[in-house]
Amino acid sequence: MREEHVSDLPLAILVNPNAEDASMIVEEALYQHWQLLVVGRCSVHYVGRAESKLEPGERTLIIKEDGSLLVHRSVGYEPVNWQPPGCVYHSHVENGVLDIQAVRHRPSESVKVSFDRIFLVSGMSLEDPGEFSLYASEEDMHKAILVSPSLLEEGFKPVSYEKKVDPGFLDVYGQDSEGRLVVVEVKRKTAGKQAAIQLAKYVDSIRERADRQVRGILAAPDIAKGVQTLLSNLGLEFRKLNPKKCAETLRQSKATKLATFFNETKTDNH
Amino acid sequence: MREEHVSDLPLAILVNPNAEDASMIVEEALYQHWQLLVVGRCSVHYVGRAESKLEPGERTLIIKEDGSLLVHRSVGYEPVNWQPPGCVYHSHVENGVLDIQAVRHRPSESVKVSFDRIFLVSGMSLEDPGEFSLYASEEDMHKAILVSPSLLEEGFKPVSYEKKVDPGFLDVYGQDSEGRLVVVEVKRKTAGKQAAIQLAKYVDSIRERADRQVRGILAAPDIAKGVQTLLSNLGLEFRKLNPKKCAETLRQSKATKLATFFNETKTDNH
Repeated sequence: MREEHVSDLPLAILVNPNAEDASMIVEEALYQHWQLLVVGRCSVHYVGRAESKLEPGERTLIIKEDGSLLVHRSVGYEPVNWQPPGCVYHSHVENGVLDIQAVRHRPSESVKVSFDRIFLVSGMSLEDPGEFSLYASEEDMHKAILVSPSLLEEGFKPVSYEKKVDPGFLDVYGQDSEGRLVVVEVKRKTAGKQAAIQLAKYVDSIRERADRQVRGILAAPDIAKGVQTLLSNLGLEFRKLNPKKCAETLRQSKATKLATFFNETKTDNH
Repeated sequence: MREEHVSDLPLAILVNPNAEDASMIVEEALYQHWQLLVVGRCSVHYVGRAESKLEPGERTLIIKEDGSLLVHRSVGYEPVNWQPPGCVYHSHVENGVLDIQAVRHRPSESVKVSFDRIFLVSGMSLEDPGEFSLYASEEDMHKAILVSPSLLEEGFKPVSYEKKVDPGFLDVYGQDSEGRLVVVEVKRKTAGKQAAIQLAKYVDSIRERADRQVRGILAAPDIAKGVQTLLSNLGLEFRKLNPKKCAETLRQSKATKLATFFNETKTDNH
């Protein structure tokens, strides 16, 4: 057994400890609400409304600061066992075996991880203030406009999206508050000359068949130098459309749907 | 920096290494297809059809033997970034920063994790032959009988399940190959006296209203000592029904539905 106490590190770690020594780090981490990491040979027994058993093997256990639990085998991105935040933990050593048990109510569930060999145990006090930002794909940007048309402009009414027309596919197609047709070309990065020319082709194609005025809007987070002039000369417009904002719009719309779903449905968790 | 070489351990580990030293374990683990574990301060940049950025913070990176990737923050059971098996990896050190990049094609995606501080890095060669067994809940056992009625007996045709009758709820209700009504009471553990009496009440309640013969079947993985005699005296039957078999039946049925779905639908991954 080697014990590490590196003063400027936010972690306590033991390599190859026996169960008793490992349990000291485990107890401390659970008590302090540190992230706990245990790598070793374990079996896992889950009991809830269903039940599962995982025979012994060498795996990674992570218990997070919020009490969520993950047991990971050495292949596959999904955990073989997991529990959401809010579990209450008990640990116990008997006959050289370290048991760590997560217990949860509503639904009543329990996951017991029993280590008979421990390679590595570490309690970690991690700081993570970093913001996570998601930027939508172009397709998601189309959907965001459909979900929240005011992202483009007030009064815009989408009619269809990814619509086939002669030179290709229109990203979004609709009409504005004054009843004019609107053709929208979406780019998720700075829009260049090519995007302006593409939009002009689509607008021309629609104008040939339309009985009313047709507007063309290029929607992108930014426009390349000089392309604004080209757009104006072509009688087209630019709208700033942010992939991050689009991602947030879609996430909110999904969250709303989910909230509606949960209010309308009596669900019981598995 | 402390370096650990514990001869009987299936892992190489460094605590508090600099980026150059850490990268030696990283390179070795990726080359050998060991599981790689890195805990430290990192930022993450994902680029695919969408894009995400995670600002610096202290996190846990796991790259598994099959090339799947997980980045875990210290709260929440879901990884903040992940990739399925089959990624190809590159690592690189520059200005004291260790970059580990996962690249995938179809869809074309890349996740870059950049560590500017490493608390712990470990390459692990884990053995995990253990079988995972899932045992269904009682409700899942009902569903398994609906999906595959021969679990109960050949020719059984379920009509309804969790049906309200006078003394409570019938688990499964149907008719047999000879047209007799069948009332099924399901238990996921050894069925005792109470289960037999409950079933008798349901059968009596149905018999009062039925125009034909009514059978009662108690379905459970096992039956308690002496209860078989009680059942026979009550004119009822026992069928062995295994929660593990039920879980497999449901999983197969879901897999079939999924396969059908993928064959019928042109999907494109996000």
